[in-house]
Amino acid sequence: MLLKLIPALLLGGLSFYLSAQDSTMIRQIYDEALLRGAAYEDLRQLCKQIGPRLSGSAQAEMAVNWSYEKMKSYNFDRVTKQAITVPHWERGTTESGWFRTHDGDLTKVHLLALGGSIGTNGLLQAEVIEFKQLSDLQKAKPKDIEGKIVFLNQAMDASQIQTFKAYGACYAIRGNGAVEAGKLGAKAVLIRSLGLPQDAHPHTGSMHYENDVNKIPAAALSTNDANALSAALQKGSVQFYLEMDCRDFPDANSFNVMAEIKGSLFPDQVITIGGHLDSWDTGEGAHDDGAGVIHCLEALRILKKLGYQPKHTIRVVFFMNEENGNQGGQQYAKWVLANQENQVAALESDRGGFAPRGFNLDGPEQYLQLLQSFEPKLRSYDLHIFEKGYGGVDIGPLKAAYPGIPLFGFVPDSQRYFDYHHAPSDVFESVNKRELELGAAAIASFVYLLDLNLQP
Amino acid sequence: MLLKLIPALLLGGLSFYLSAQDSTMIRQIYDEALLRGAAYEDLRQLCKQIGPRLSGSAQAEMAVNWSYEKMKSYNFDRVTKQAITVPHWERGTTESGWFRTHDGDLTKVHLLALGGSIGTNGLLQAEVIEFKQLSDLQKAKPKDIEGKIVFLNQAMDASQIQTFKAYGACYAIRGNGAVEAGKLGAKAVLIRSLGLPQDAHPHTGSMHYENDVNKIPAAALSTNDANALSAALQKGSVQFYLEMDCRDFPDANSFNVMAEIKGSLFPDQVITIGGHLDSWDTGEGAHDDGAGVIHCLEALRILKKLGYQPKHTIRVVFFMNEENGNQGGQQYAKWVLANQENQVAALESDRGGFAPRGFNLDGPEQYLQLLQSFEPKLRSYDLHIFEKGYGGVDIGPLKAAYPGIPLFGFVPDSQRYFDYHHAPSDVFESVNKRELELGAAAIASFVYLLDLNLQP
Repeated sequence: MLLKLIPALLLGGLSFYLSAQDSTMIRQIYDEALLRGAAYEDLRQLCKQIGPRLSGSAQAEMAVNWSYEKMKSYNFDRVTKQAITVPHWERGTTESGWFRTHDGDLTKVHLLALGGSIGTNGLLQAEVIEFKQLSDLQKAKPKDIEGKIVFLNQAMDASQIQTFKAYGACYAIRGNGAVEAGKLGAKAVLIRSLGLPQDAHPHTGSMHYENDVNKIPAAALSTNDANALSAALQKGSVQFYLEMDCRDFPDANSFNVMAEIKGSLFPDQVITIGGHLDSWDTGEGAHDDGAGVIHCLEALRILKKLGYQPKHTIRVVFFMNEENGNQGGQQYAKWVLANQENQVAALESDRGGFAPRGFNLDGPEQYLQLLQSFEPKLRSYDLHIFEKGYGGVDIGPLKAAYPGIPLFGFVPDSQRYFDYHHAPSDVFESVNKRELELGAAAIASFVYLLDLNLQP
Repeated sequence: MLLKLIPALLLGGLSFYLSAQDSTMIRQIYDEALLRGAAYEDLRQLCKQIGPRLSGSAQAEMAVNWSYEKMKSYNFDRVTKQAITVPHWERGTTESGWFRTHDGDLTKVHLLALGGSIGTNGLLQAEVIEFKQLSDLQKAKPKDIEGKIVFLNQAMDASQIQTFKAYGACYAIRGNGAVEAGKLGAKAVLIRSLGLPQDAHPHTGSMHYENDVNKIPAAALSTNDANALSAALQKGSVQFYLEMDCRDFPDANSFNVMAEIKGSLFPDQVITIGGHLDSWDTGEGAHDDGAGVIHCLEALRILKKLGYQPKHTIRVVFFMNEENGNQGGQQYAKWVLANQENQVAALESDRGGFAPRGFNLDGPEQYLQLLQSFEPKLRSYDLHIFEKGYGGVDIGPLKAAYPGIPLFGFVPDSQRYFDYHHAPSDVFESVNKRELELGAAAIASFVYLLDLNLQP
C-alpha cells in the first residue's frame, strides 16, 4: 500500500513543483508588464508618431518601418518583412452631407464614407427612404427605391451583453447595403453607424460591391444624425445632399512584419501570435488594432526579457490589411505553407485594449481541455473566460492551410469597444494604461502555458 | 422505484420552472437597464447639476434635496430623510505649494489638502525630508525631523492585480502620516497621492489627528510632482513652501436619504442597499460614489418598474458622510436598531461605475453558499466573482448592530478606479454609460435573487 503510493507522491510532487514554477513565471510576467512594461509607450508611438494607417497609405508604410525598427530594437532572433499586395482606397478630401426637411430646415450631418465606396462625382441629391433592416429593403419594389437614397437605420442592440453579438447582427447593413440598394436602383446608401453610444462620431468600416450590380456611394451617419434623420422622415419627405470624392487606386505593395524567438526543442513548430497593423483612416487605430499588435509584441518582449527559452518557435506577426481585404492573413497562410512551416497554434488579439477576461478557442475539442487547464493558473489574474469561440480574422486562413490547428482569440471586456471601433474617437487616450498592460501580460502568460503544454 | 422518482421529478420540474422564471426576470432587468435605463441621466444630473458634495457643504444639502425629489419622482412606497450630524471641513480658497532646489530652481506643484487638515496660517516654509514608508518615518529620530516637512513618497504597487490591495497598503501614509510626523516635531506632512497613474492630478482623502499630538497641515502631491520632488531631493536639500487655508467648522446638520418598496411577505424584514451621497470636494464624485448611489436607486426603480413585489422590504439608502466620518452609516445603524427594525441583509456599491464582475460577502458561511448559488444565473451576464470579501463602509456598522447579518459588496472591475479616486478627474465623463447600466442591472438581479432566496 505504502509502496504503491510512492510514485503517486513523486508525481504529485513533480506536478506541484511544475505548478509552482508556472505560478512564479506568470507572476514575473505580470510584474514585467505592470512595473517595467513597454506596451503603453509603444502604443503611444504608433498612435501619435504614425497615426491612422490604412492599407496603401503613406502612414501604413511608416507603420511598417516603425514596426520593423521596434522589433529589431528588442533583439529577437529574427525580424522579417513579408511582401504582400494590398488594396488601396482613399477617402479623398471632400466628405459632406446635409438633409433638408419638407419645410426647408437644413442639417449638416457627421458622416464617413464606408471603406471601398466610390465617390459621388459632385453633389448628389435625392429623396431619402428609410429601412430598419436589410431584409426590409430586400422586400421593397424597385419603383419605390429607384433614384432615391436608401437609409438603413438598424440600431445595435444595447441589450446584448456581449457587444460583438450586437455588432454581428448589424454587420449586413454595412457590408451588403450598397449591393442590395444598388440592385433596386438607389442612387446611394446611408447607414446608421455601427456604434453603441448616441453621439456625433460616425463609424466607418468595410463594404463591398458585386460586379453585376450598379455601384453606388455608401456612407455611415453618426447615431445622433441617424436619429435626427429618422425623426425628420416621420414628418415628411426629406432630401439628402451628399458629396464624397473617395476612390480606389491600383493595388499597393506592403508588408506583414514579424519577429520570433526560436524554439529550443521544436524550432520547426511555430506558434503565431498577432494582430493587425493597418487601421481605418480615422482616429488613430488605438484599440483597433494598435492595442492588439502591441499586446503581442509586448508578450514576446516580456518572454525574452525573462530569459524564457520556448520549446516551440514563437512568432509575433503584425498583419497588414485586415480592415479591407485580409491580404495579410491570407498571404501569410500561403507563405508559411509554401515554406513548409509547421504551424502548431495561433493567437490573435483584435478586440481592443480593455481589461482582459480570458481566451476563446476555435479548434478541435482536445484543445478546449488544454485551454481550460490554464484556468486555475490564471484565475487570480481576473481571467475567467476559457471557452469555445472565435480566433481572429488575420489568423483565420491558417485554419484551411493547417486543418486541426487550434486558433485562440484573446477576450478583453467588450463593453466599451463599440464606443470607439472605426471612429474618430479611437485614439491613444481611449486606451487605459493598466488595461493594456494586463492584456499583454495575459497573452504572454497564455503563450507561456501553451508553449509548455502543447503536445507535439 | 418509479414511484419514488415522481416526487423527485416534480421537484425537478418545479426547480426548472423557478429557474426559468429567474432567467426571464433577470433578462427583463437587464433590458430595462440597458434599453430604458435612467442611471446615466440621473448620474449626469447629480454630477453636473450638483457637482462635488462634501459633508456640510451647500452642495451636499442640494444633493440631499435632489435625491429626495428624485426618489419621490419614482413613486416608491416611502421616501424619507434621516437627520444626522456631520463634520464640516472646508478647503478654503488658497492651496498652493512650491519646492525650491539647492540651486534655486522653483517648481509649482499640484496639491490638495487632505480632508480634515488644518491650514498653514500664511506661507509655511521648511526643508523637506523624504521617507518611502510610514514605518521608516516611525524609526526616525526627532532631531532629524523637527522643523521639517515630512514627505511620504510610497507609490501604490502597480503589480497588484486588485488595485484596492495596492490602495490598502498605502492607506497609512494618508491616514496616519500627520500624526506620525507630528509626534516627531515636523511642521507639515506631504504625501504622494494614492493614485496609480503618473499624472498631474492630486488625490485627496481623509486623514486624522490625535488629541495629544501636535496638529500639522497635510497635503497630497500629484504623482508627477512627487516624482519631481523626490528627484530634486536626490541632488541636494529642498525647501518647500506651502499655503493652505482649509479649516474645520462646527458640525452641520445633514441627512441620509432613503426610499423603499414594502415587502409583501415579510414587510418587517429589511434589505438595505446603498452607497454614499457625499463626495470629496474635487471632481464631481462620479465614480466615488455617484455611481454607487445611482446603481442602487436604479436597481430599485427597475424592480418597481417591472412590477416585482419583493418578499422583504427593499430599501435604498443614500448615506451621507462616508468620506470623512461615516456618520451616515453609524447613525443609520443606531436608528434602525432603535426602531426595532429587522435588518436581514445589506449591499453596498462603493467601488466605482465600472464593468461588473461580481459580489463579495462579509458574513457567515451559509451565505457564501447562497451567494455562490446565484453564479449559474448570472454567469452569462459576465459576472464571475462570488466570494468572501468586503461589504462597504456605510453598511459596516450594521454588523455590530445585527450580529450575523450578511453584508454584500458589489465588485466592478477595479483597474481604472485609482485613476479617478478622490481626484479632480472623477467627473461624469469618466463613467461609461454601459458599464454604469450593467452595474445597476447586476445589483437589481442580485437583490431579486437575494429577496427570493433568503431564508427567514
